[in-house]
Amino acid sequence: MKRYEQYADEIAELIRTQVLRAGDRLPSVRQASGSRHISPSTVFEAYYLLEARGLIQARPRSGYYVNALRAAGGVEPATAPPAGESTPVAISELVFEVLGSTRQADVVPLGSAFPSPRLFPLDKLARCLSPAMRRLEPQRIVEELTSGSERLRRQLGLRYVSAGLGLDTREIVITNGAMEALNLCLQAVTRPGDVVAVESPTFYAALQALERLQLRAVEVATHPRHGVELASLAQVLSQHPVKACWFMPNFQNPLGSLMPEENKRALVELLARHEVPLIEDDVYAELYFGLRRPLPCKSFDRQGLVMHCSSFSKNLAPGYRVGWTAAGRFAERVQRLKLMTTLGNAVAPQEALCDYLQQGGYDRHLRQLRQALADSQARALRGIAKHFPAGTRVTRPEGGYFLWVQLPQGVDALTLHRLALSQNISLAPGHLFSADRRFANCVRLNYGQGGDERFDDALRTLGQLACAQLAA
Amino acid sequence: MKRYEQYADEIAELIRTQVLRAGDRLPSVRQASGSRHISPSTVFEAYYLLEARGLIQARPRSGYYVNALRAAGGVEPATAPPAGESTPVAISELVFEVLGSTRQADVVPLGSAFPSPRLFPLDKLARCLSPAMRRLEPQRIVEELTSGSERLRRQLGLRYVSAGLGLDTREIVITNGAMEALNLCLQAVTRPGDVVAVESPTFYAALQALERLQLRAVEVATHPRHGVELASLAQVLSQHPVKACWFMPNFQNPLGSLMPEENKRALVELLARHEVPLIEDDVYAELYFGLRRPLPCKSFDRQGLVMHCSSFSKNLAPGYRVGWTAAGRFAERVQRLKLMTTLGNAVAPQEALCDYLQQGGYDRHLRQLRQALADSQARALRGIAKHFPAGTRVTRPEGGYFLWVQLPQGVDALTLHRLALSQNISLAPGHLFSADRRFANCVRLNYGQGGDERFDDALRTLGQLACAQLAA
Repeated sequence: MKRYEQYADEIAELIRTQVLRAGDRLPSVRQASGSRHISPSTVFEAYYLLEARGLIQARPRSGYYVNALRAAGGVEPATAPPAGESTPVAISELVFEVLGSTRQADVVPLGSAFPSPRLFPLDKLARCLSPAMRRLEPQRIVEELTSGSERLRRQLGLRYVSAGLGLDTREIVITNGAMEALNLCLQAVTRPGDVVAVESPTFYAALQALERLQLRAVEVATHPRHGVELASLAQVLSQHPVKACWFMPNFQNPLGSLMPEENKRALVELLARHEVPLIEDDVYAELYFGLRRPLPCKSFDRQGLVMHCSSFSKNLAPGYRVGWTAAGRFAERVQRLKLMTTLGNAVAPQEALCDYLQQGGYDRHLRQLRQALADSQARALRGIAKHFPAGTRVTRPEGGYFLWVQLPQGVDALTLHRLALSQNISLAPGHLFSADRRFANCVRLNYGQGGDERFDDALRTLGQLACAQLAA
Repeated sequence: MKRYEQYADEIAELIRTQVLRAGDRLPSVRQASGSRHISPSTVFEAYYLLEARGLIQARPRSGYYVNALRAAGGVEPATAPPAGESTPVAISELVFEVLGSTRQADVVPLGSAFPSPRLFPLDKLARCLSPAMRRLEPQRIVEELTSGSERLRRQLGLRYVSAGLGLDTREIVITNGAMEALNLCLQAVTRPGDVVAVESPTFYAALQALERLQLRAVEVATHPRHGVELASLAQVLSQHPVKACWFMPNFQNPLGSLMPEENKRALVELLARHEVPLIEDDVYAELYFGLRRPLPCKSFDRQGLVMHCSSFSKNLAPGYRVGWTAAGRFAERVQRLKLMTTLGNAVAPQEALCDYLQQGGYDRHLRQLRQALADSQARALRGIAKHFPAGTRVTRPEGGYFLWVQLPQGVDALTLHRLALSQNISLAPGHLFSADRRFANCVRLNYGQGGDERFDDALRTLGQLACAQLAA
């Protein structure tokens, strides 16, 4: 890490721990340079970086101030305690009903699970496809069918190193997006009737996967900012024969929560003591607004129990369907399941991604993408603060593209969903995110498709609909 | 159909039904033209077509003769009657052990499941990738995620029309190769513990799919030339609570059997009476050596019970992983399962295939491919007749790229596999093709990687190893 990054990091930490608060003025460049024994240009670069991340802002002829929107804002939701029982899952029908209705092209897609495709370097990627495939030795099509391109797995291995962990690339299996990786991992370590621990609220695709494999869900209390609560997990592990956990430690869907590093380490140690595998869904990690990629739980794993799953779908190449898992001691089992169910992955998208990654535009693209999402989050938070009913609570995630909005009691999210849809706005009602449909007054809003006036208007309409429901 | 095609068809039928036999002389052009009231050039074209298909050959200054290799050759295997009981399946371990050992690059891949990648227009396809993706409207990436490219589904619909059936393209779901299609279909109509009818011998991937979903297999007697025996199936249906059939009516793997049209119609009617869905694996249909694509069972289906599965992997675009299913009344269920397990297919391979299909080189490519495979089959049959032990029986399929070789009792195919592998030759031992491992003296040989001296040498070595086993 360079000196200016280090200094920026220190200030970010002061903001995170609220030593520096909204509206506080940062030391002037001269002050900082003098007191820290660093050059003025280092201070400038650090402030510039913090500003790009949306943590501070410059006021003309006055200096740098801690950004009001990020540190202040409204009240965040609290942890919602789950029931504590394990339950069979029957959520799919509702998920299909709700999502199916939100796919029309003219709907403002606040309920979508995807960021806008306009945010990605699709043309640059497309240009890689033909040359990459024309260079490919035909024999490799069959040889690399099931585990995926060796070249790509080596590049993923390099990115793992820079994310703080080294692993044998033979542990990696390329999959049809992270969705296939997660499903294969879940199937590799469970049998029908088994209990699986999930977050609360939970990403609905995890619930659907449990339902499809006839597994039982037990929900673990999850803090909207810090993620899985370890005391709750310890209790669940002592009371239920948990066969696996499916968690999203970095920017959880729908909460956006980010587990602190010390919690990740403790989580891995706790699960190692119980010999319980962790399926780590890490698809949002690259969409951080902080200073660096948050570590995966996998980087604390010494037992091969963490099955790390990720993809390029949310941060680079939607529609390329290139995901993967580094499945630890279960790698061979996952590979065999892959062979039996989808045989292998399309070759061209993998080879094109290899070429793109080697050309070196990925990190620049990611910086722009993070900035666009951070800006869009700020805009969404302003809209919600302005238009939503008093008593609304909303998360302020440090990455990803979802807000979790807890509306006052009296608003029913499914009703709101239907009313919104009649005005050509979609949303994801809280009902989708729990096996027992507890989050009836919550909605997940996607700001990754936003940042324009149509989006602002949609938020205003949503707010009006919610207010009208409360007044009725 | 043109007049010369019609005439060629009539002669092919006479050969198939053995009215015309190996070595029989065809009528001279003048005779045929006179007796049939067709022009001499029509007769010439018909004979030329039959020759291109390997059914007849010209002898200089003598006329056209029925091709000895195709109509004569050695003795074909007889139907092997299955046990009649339904059994749980535990075959995967053996399949992985055997197939895993045959993937090395320097092995002559007679055990492979794939034809040689050199047989496909990989460069032409690769050139389609970048332009197709650069033209794509980004919004379609999300809109068409789960069912697949609408353009491609429309083109598939057109090919279905030319294969003799019209269907609503909304019935089609694009999948990650036929393997995913088959697995999704199987999952859509069964629950753990259910009984599924399969052919005997059975493609091992079907057995693996049953094992993975904890289904029971009941094997149906399958004739090496005519496929599923309907009397055997009727008995199975009356004795077992069959929830689905997984059959390959066109060029079955491993037998290469082709169900006659009247049997396909009767099969569909029989299953309709029992309300049993048919999962039709039709990946080899385009690799026919006869005059036209054999009809799928789907073309006789009036109840929406046939789930037709196919792909481009075996006849055009290996590694593109573009398969599909037209799943009849189960289409929505399949689509939902797809959404839950792999979400969607890579976009670029689908769009590139659309462009390739529109350019119109597909049928020319298929003609060349069929000719190459037919030639290679003839070469393999010559090699087997020359080198394999007396008493060896071998199929003579009218399409595809597999031979099923029944060696004399006393040869153990697993032992042969191990001996062959030590000489850098792979094969697929019969043990893989039945839940009760009955086909211990049979092997499946792939001639789709053959047609060269290395291949001839490998067949000679295999024959010597089998003879040595018998002598020991």
